[in-house]
Amino acid sequence: MLDEAPRDQLRQGLAQVRELLEKQRLVEGLAHRDRSQRHELVESLVHRQHLSELHTKLSRLHIADVAYILTVLPPDERLLVWRQTGRNRGGDVLLEVPEEVRQWLIEAMEPGELTEVLNQLDAEDLAYIADELPEDALQQRLQSLTLQDRQWLVSTMAYDEDAVGHLMSPDMVTVREDFTLGQVLETLRNLEAMPIHSDKLLVVNGRGILTGVLSLSALLLGSPSGTVAGTMATNVVTFRPEEMAREAAKAFERYDLASAPVVNERGKLLGRLTVDVVMDYIREEQEEKILVRAGLSGGEDLFASVWDSARNRWLWLSINLFTAFLASRVIGLFEGTIAQVVALAALMPIVSGVGGNTGNQTTAIIIRGLALEQIGHTNLWRLARKELAVSLLNGLVWGGVMGLVAYGLYWNPGLGLVMAAAMLLNMLIAGVVGLAVPLGLERWGRDPALGSSVLLTATTDAMGFFIFLGLASLFLL
Amino acid sequence: MLDEAPRDQLRQGLAQVRELLEKQRLVEGLAHRDRSQRHELVESLVHRQHLSELHTKLSRLHIADVAYILTVLPPDERLLVWRQTGRNRGGDVLLEVPEEVRQWLIEAMEPGELTEVLNQLDAEDLAYIADELPEDALQQRLQSLTLQDRQWLVSTMAYDEDAVGHLMSPDMVTVREDFTLGQVLETLRNLEAMPIHSDKLLVVNGRGILTGVLSLSALLLGSPSGTVAGTMATNVVTFRPEEMAREAAKAFERYDLASAPVVNERGKLLGRLTVDVVMDYIREEQEEKILVRAGLSGGEDLFASVWDSARNRWLWLSINLFTAFLASRVIGLFEGTIAQVVALAALMPIVSGVGGNTGNQTTAIIIRGLALEQIGHTNLWRLARKELAVSLLNGLVWGGVMGLVAYGLYWNPGLGLVMAAAMLLNMLIAGVVGLAVPLGLERWGRDPALGSSVLLTATTDAMGFFIFLGLASLFLL
Repeated sequence: MLDEAPRDQLRQGLAQVRELLEKQRLVEGLAHRDRSQRHELVESLVHRQHLSELHTKLSRLHIADVAYILTVLPPDERLLVWRQTGRNRGGDVLLEVPEEVRQWLIEAMEPGELTEVLNQLDAEDLAYIADELPEDALQQRLQSLTLQDRQWLVSTMAYDEDAVGHLMSPDMVTVREDFTLGQVLETLRNLEAMPIHSDKLLVVNGRGILTGVLSLSALLLGSPSGTVAGTMATNVVTFRPEEMAREAAKAFERYDLASAPVVNERGKLLGRLTVDVVMDYIREEQEEKILVRAGLSGGEDLFASVWDSARNRWLWLSINLFTAFLASRVIGLFEGTIAQVVALAALMPIVSGVGGNTGNQTTAIIIRGLALEQIGHTNLWRLARKELAVSLLNGLVWGGVMGLVAYGLYWNPGLGLVMAAAMLLNMLIAGVVGLAVPLGLERWGRDPALGSSVLLTATTDAMGFFIFLGLASLFLL
Repeated sequence: MLDEAPRDQLRQGLAQVRELLEKQRLVEGLAHRDRSQRHELVESLVHRQHLSELHTKLSRLHIADVAYILTVLPPDERLLVWRQTGRNRGGDVLLEVPEEVRQWLIEAMEPGELTEVLNQLDAEDLAYIADELPEDALQQRLQSLTLQDRQWLVSTMAYDEDAVGHLMSPDMVTVREDFTLGQVLETLRNLEAMPIHSDKLLVVNGRGILTGVLSLSALLLGSPSGTVAGTMATNVVTFRPEEMAREAAKAFERYDLASAPVVNERGKLLGRLTVDVVMDYIREEQEEKILVRAGLSGGEDLFASVWDSARNRWLWLSINLFTAFLASRVIGLFEGTIAQVVALAALMPIVSGVGGNTGNQTTAIIIRGLALEQIGHTNLWRLARKELAVSLLNGLVWGGVMGLVAYGLYWNPGLGLVMAAAMLLNMLIAGVVGLAVPLGLERWGRDPALGSSVLLTATTDAMGFFIFLGLASLFLL
């Protein structure tokens, strides 16, 4: 029978940790109420016993599960659990928690405590979190590295945070072309361990140039007397350290990779990129995008303070207030018209709102096409014509429907016609803007997934009000 | 030196294919203009030559790259390239293209052509696309499978489309506990190939029960005389076929897996789940969500017809029109008030719009927390208090600001106060609704990422108008 796997342990683990924390809180509560010497002694024993139970429980959990538990606990309990994660696992846990929780932990630790945790990390791990560390703590840790590790760390940190060079690992197994497979098998037996996701060995020549890869399958299935040169594959998917991780992620998906070598422009082997790092990168980028799109600047800790959370949201709210203000001023231009036909005030949010929705549909199609690199010179014009035709059709259909509704509500045929015309025009504008905004942002090197929605809604709101109230001023007064 | 890798070939491949298609189009254009016998013969030769050049070019590209090219081409060119992908690669390409393009190709093929392509697929591949195939084509193909394959296919198709059982593969290498590592190495040499992402061999007993896994690293590093039983790991992350793929994806990320066994409730080994399938699943789910959130029902082919595209968007547009209509009726209740204080018409979209934005920020935080399973009984109340405090703070700050702005625009202190009070109240309501809507949808087993935004905006619009115009009716008339 199989043992208990990490997943099963996690299911019970969180509940047990919470139970222990609950007991802990009770003990602390008691200690506050009764301060007599004898009680305190007993309670401190109970206290220590709970903590050691917690410590034992945590030390049995997988690192990733301890990280998860830390993330979902509110600050006071988070610190208690963190202090019990054990001196020897703090470093690994720190790597595993989300960035916003890591920042919280780093701030919560004493300098000495931080040093101790950082000493558990090797050069690769340090590179991963280096930009989040206090400068002095990082410098102090750098001093204690070997020269080679320090050089590797410094060169890695020089790459952009989103570049392959920042995510690559120095851990890899290399072999020489002139070995036989039998010799390779012998050599491997002398290793203590293989790095994670070693699905292939990297074949290099004397000058460190990558000449091919030997997959473990080929190694295992081949005859021991065959040579590496005769068995290895030479059509290798490689990456440059300065390439964007996003591009690498696409290649990992497209070619079903578990690991891939990173080489410089001369073909020299620099490091290795693995699928776990790529998956983490995709997930983090995706989560961050969802938050940023909703107007939160980057990762917000679930338990950030009210003040921090509020400030984190102000930039977006102030931009939205500003565009709402502009739209409001457009309406302000037509106050005279509204005073004469009050029904306009009730109908105008329909024109602006539905325009925004049509535009957002077009924008979503374009953003996806851009993300998947499916849009280029040759098909752009065709795509634009299609989207505009859809806008026109939608404008005719829904403009017609709402024109009839407006007529039915107010028994005013002119108002119905103005409503229908304004909806048609605003939906056409929404189509054009919904196409132009993401394409423009992409051309200026901005991420179209982030700014498009605000720009689009600002336009469809202001234009919706302007067209509807303008047409009404011309034809209804 | 390394050979040209798939990635490099793709860079030039698309351009070359497009160039060939361009020539092709010219030839066809000429053929239409001049129909004299002699010309036709020459052109048909040129035509055939271009096609064979295209064929050669395509046959050198990686399957994933041919799929990409098919996806970005408009319909007529897409069909031309598809017909040239070669009889023997059609099946693999069909698996690789996005679902909406696959449906297009399946519809575009003659029945005989489809049969030929399906015959290239094994049971596992068929299971992957079975629900997209015409019933008769699938049945016909099923008849030609071996009994064992047919049984596997039928059992796989019985699982939910989003379940592990639907995504697992029958390809795996199993070994027995009582073998020595040396014997395992010998056995492997008799295999023709190992399945993709074989980072571990699966250890089963005589009754097919999984008893452990032997990682290739352990196999390679261990002594040939050691036994499988003594080397294998027994704390294995396994999945059940009925589990949701979403959960499996989280476990793959958390425990950095490349592959994992799928077992039934008695521990019998059923199949294997690999990281490439999991990555594809994550990406597809994510893309679909972005589209659905913008109001497009599922994947829309970039080159779908105008009519199909429009209908694809109507459900969402009609829902939005309906909520906009309700909001408009709320305003309609207060037409008498607006007729007396026209400034209200200009200011009211600010109250509703900014309320929607605050609510969406709260919703985004909650949706992320739910997706990462970070929200539970113990921390929900704390989180709710924090979010409401943020709404209160935002309401006081931005309500105050906009109150002053309204006062500055119209020199009416009462209007400024009503504006400030309405913004504060609507932002508080937005906070409550922004919390309640995703939590409610989650509790009712719906995906909170999909319906939240419409429900939230409908509420903040209607309530924003109601509160602002209601307060104005009470205090300004």
